[in-house]
Amino acid sequence: MAREFLFTSESVSEGHPDKVADQISDSVLDAILAQDPLGRVACETLVSTGLVVISGEITTNADINYMDIARETVKRIGYDDSEIGFDYKSCAVLTAINRQSSDIAQGVNEGEGLDLDQGAGDQGLMFGYATNETPSLMPFPIYYAHRIMQRQAEVRKDGRLPWLRPDAKSQLTVKYVDGKPVAIDTVVVSTQHHPDVSHADLTEAVIELVIKPVLPKELLTDGTRYLINPTGRFVIGGPNGDCGLTGRKIIVDTYGGAAHHGGGAFSGKDPSKVDRSAAYAGRYVAKNIVAAGLADRCEVQVAYAIGVARPVSLMVETFGTGKVSDEKIVELVQKHFDLRPKGIIAALNLLRPIYSRTAAYGHFGRDEVDFTWEHTDKADALRADAGL
Amino acid sequence: MAREFLFTSESVSEGHPDKVADQISDSVLDAILAQDPLGRVACETLVSTGLVVISGEITTNADINYMDIARETVKRIGYDDSEIGFDYKSCAVLTAINRQSSDIAQGVNEGEGLDLDQGAGDQGLMFGYATNETPSLMPFPIYYAHRIMQRQAEVRKDGRLPWLRPDAKSQLTVKYVDGKPVAIDTVVVSTQHHPDVSHADLTEAVIELVIKPVLPKELLTDGTRYLINPTGRFVIGGPNGDCGLTGRKIIVDTYGGAAHHGGGAFSGKDPSKVDRSAAYAGRYVAKNIVAAGLADRCEVQVAYAIGVARPVSLMVETFGTGKVSDEKIVELVQKHFDLRPKGIIAALNLLRPIYSRTAAYGHFGRDEVDFTWEHTDKADALRADAGL
Ligand SMILES: C[S@@+](CC[C@H](N)C(=O)[O-])C[C@H]1O[C@@H](n2cnc3c(N)ncnc32)[C@H](O)[C@@H]1O
Ligand SMILES: C[S@@+](CC[C@H](N)C(=O)[O-])C[C@H]1O[C@@H](n2cnc3c(N)ncnc32)[C@H](O)[C@@H]1O
Repeated sequence: MAREFLFTSESVSEGHPDKVADQISDSVLDAILAQDPLGRVACETLVSTGLVVISGEITTNADINYMDIARETVKRIGYDDSEIGFDYKSCAVLTAINRQSSDIAQGVNEGEGLDLDQGAGDQGLMFGYATNETPSLMPFPIYYAHRIMQRQAEVRKDGRLPWLRPDAKSQLTVKYVDGKPVAIDTVVVSTQHHPDVSHADLTEAVIELVIKPVLPKELLTDGTRYLINPTGRFVIGGPNGDCGLTGRKIIVDTYGGAAHHGGGAFSGKDPSKVDRSAAYAGRYVAKNIVAAGLADRCEVQVAYAIGVARPVSLMVETFGTGKVSDEKIVELVQKHFDLRPKGIIAALNLLRPIYSRTAAYGHFGRDEVDFTWEHTDKADALRADAGL
Repeated sequence: MAREFLFTSESVSEGHPDKVADQISDSVLDAILAQDPLGRVACETLVSTGLVVISGEITTNADINYMDIARETVKRIGYDDSEIGFDYKSCAVLTAINRQSSDIAQGVNEGEGLDLDQGAGDQGLMFGYATNETPSLMPFPIYYAHRIMQRQAEVRKDGRLPWLRPDAKSQLTVKYVDGKPVAIDTVVVSTQHHPDVSHADLTEAVIELVIKPVLPKELLTDGTRYLINPTGRFVIGGPNGDCGLTGRKIIVDTYGGAAHHGGGAFSGKDPSKVDRSAAYAGRYVAKNIVAAGLADRCEVQVAYAIGVARPVSLMVETFGTGKVSDEKIVELVQKHFDLRPKGIIAALNLLRPIYSRTAAYGHFGRDEVDFTWEHTDKADALRADAGL
């Protein structure tokens, strides 16, 4: 019998408070990497009513104005008036920034510590995932949840729906039959808005101008449910409605719950932190395996000990879709990918200021050329080596 | 052929900075629920060198001294001297707390908003999981990673290893054959320590007095690797070594990466927030299904729209271990569990000050009597109704 189930993923807009925090953290990271590619950065941000707090551990010789970076980021997102929940011009920006602990640094620096190689910046586990259910090799629900949010920002910023405000969330419930998405069951969108637009007008505009233009028509049915601003009102928004923190949207940042997650956040972290770099490498590995045709779906887990370069474990799972055994794929991964921090950073060219764009609409499944972890340049070699 | 793989999970101690933040947030929540069970609480904390920032949205008539709660929590954890990284007596405590947005409140309050029932406090997806690989029906690696961390705190506090300090992490790599844990491949423990203990003494004591007493002997082999304080030094710790935020250990809080995660954090949130209450309900559902013998492993996903009471989707997956079909189990879940926020809160008796103990060593797989979501009181009825 065909196995049928519903699966739900969500996304949030660039104006969501957690994403405001992520973008400030990654803008700080980019400003540092632009001047000092070897800077050590772990930048955490909290945003609340009228307030930005920037904290974390940063060791760099770059000359950084945190206040300006925070204000610029908030301005770019569109919070320019306290009436809409936040104002880049008048918010307070507090900083409480430390240097990287010298005890940690000795584990990470090449030539220091017990392992003389560049050690992982922390212990931890990271997953990478890919599935051929979309051309981007991303799970369908999160992929389209992001597209709805990008579209919300587009029609907000270009003036087509001038009563839209920056804060928003989307959620897609998708019906799967035998592992493939066959219909969109429910679409939830909540968007912040000007008080003068009626719930009816907002609902129609969001369905017609935000949702429908980006979803594949074949999967919208007469039965598709739309739940638009289901609280009935969403005027208060941004950091004024909800306190935001860096690293609190880690499922939105990755696979929307369709893959496992190791728990590490990305934004604000330089790539010596494997939470970020090894998760990017995990995506790169999984995507190349699927692109090579070795499997329809692939998940990899990799884990590290702090201060140690080589991963302590590597797992590959292809959910019964593999053309060769999972053990054989583990071997191929070990041969074709260097998963030590230094190897990942070199292969993916990660010491560049490319991170602020990752901090909204997903780190994966994007076609920006700098997102090197999406390249499928290893697929041919993997396919050949597997004898396919 | 027997499928063999390595799987890794991690835990952190109550002195880890993210857990310090979680415990402060949940101590605030408990203080409010003790006086005002209907208080609306979303409490976020940031801890950094010498600093606690408490923020979020709180609507209550309880009389709360945030400063005292923060200091008490930090004291209980054991940070009582700036020399060890933090001092409850002298740290700064800043508060920036808002009330719950009235736009959100109208969606959540019973009798208000578009859905007159008590609506979900947010949209989102939550997973629950159970597996019979341990008696607690928890995945093996996270279960034992927690036990190592609890043991670290025990021998630190009772004076057996007086040079231990509060901050620590553990990580377990486990070899699985055909879905069952058969050997412990690698144990990583990093623990903060007094500068005077040598790396050799620390390593031996941690292996003999922290790790071995809690791990099942049958799974420790001659090949088991121990990586103890692999950076070589961990004197600087706590909020002084690493900025901590509420909600940044969501995989440690749940299933260690062995199950999927919806992304929502728990600590600081009252149970009108489905991020917490529906994830607890998901564990309750999955655990009862496994306890009933309907499956060896069970994962459930549930999703909500903000302001709407009924879940927008429900999925059950038993990974081929089900004694009846997944579709049949969905039916049983719908019949035996009320997954509206009000139904969950009533069934699990969640409006009590029980949360600060959840904020370290995992929210699941614990045998504290107040952790109602661990009760298997529905197993008999499920088994009977399934005709097993
Ligand atoms: C509902 S809030 C989380 C709960 C909140 N901290 C509280 O105390 O009620 C999460 C997100 O929902 C969105 N949101 C805020 N106000 C909303 C409203 N009135 N209706 C729908 N969504 C809203 C924003 O994107 C916000 O960041
Ligand atoms: C390594 S830190 C994260 C990275 C950090 N923010 C930085 O900028 O380097 C994460 C956790 O590791 C642990 N830790 C801190 N210092 C350590 C050390 N010297 N060796 C091993 N673990 C350490 C603490 O539990 C800390 O919260």
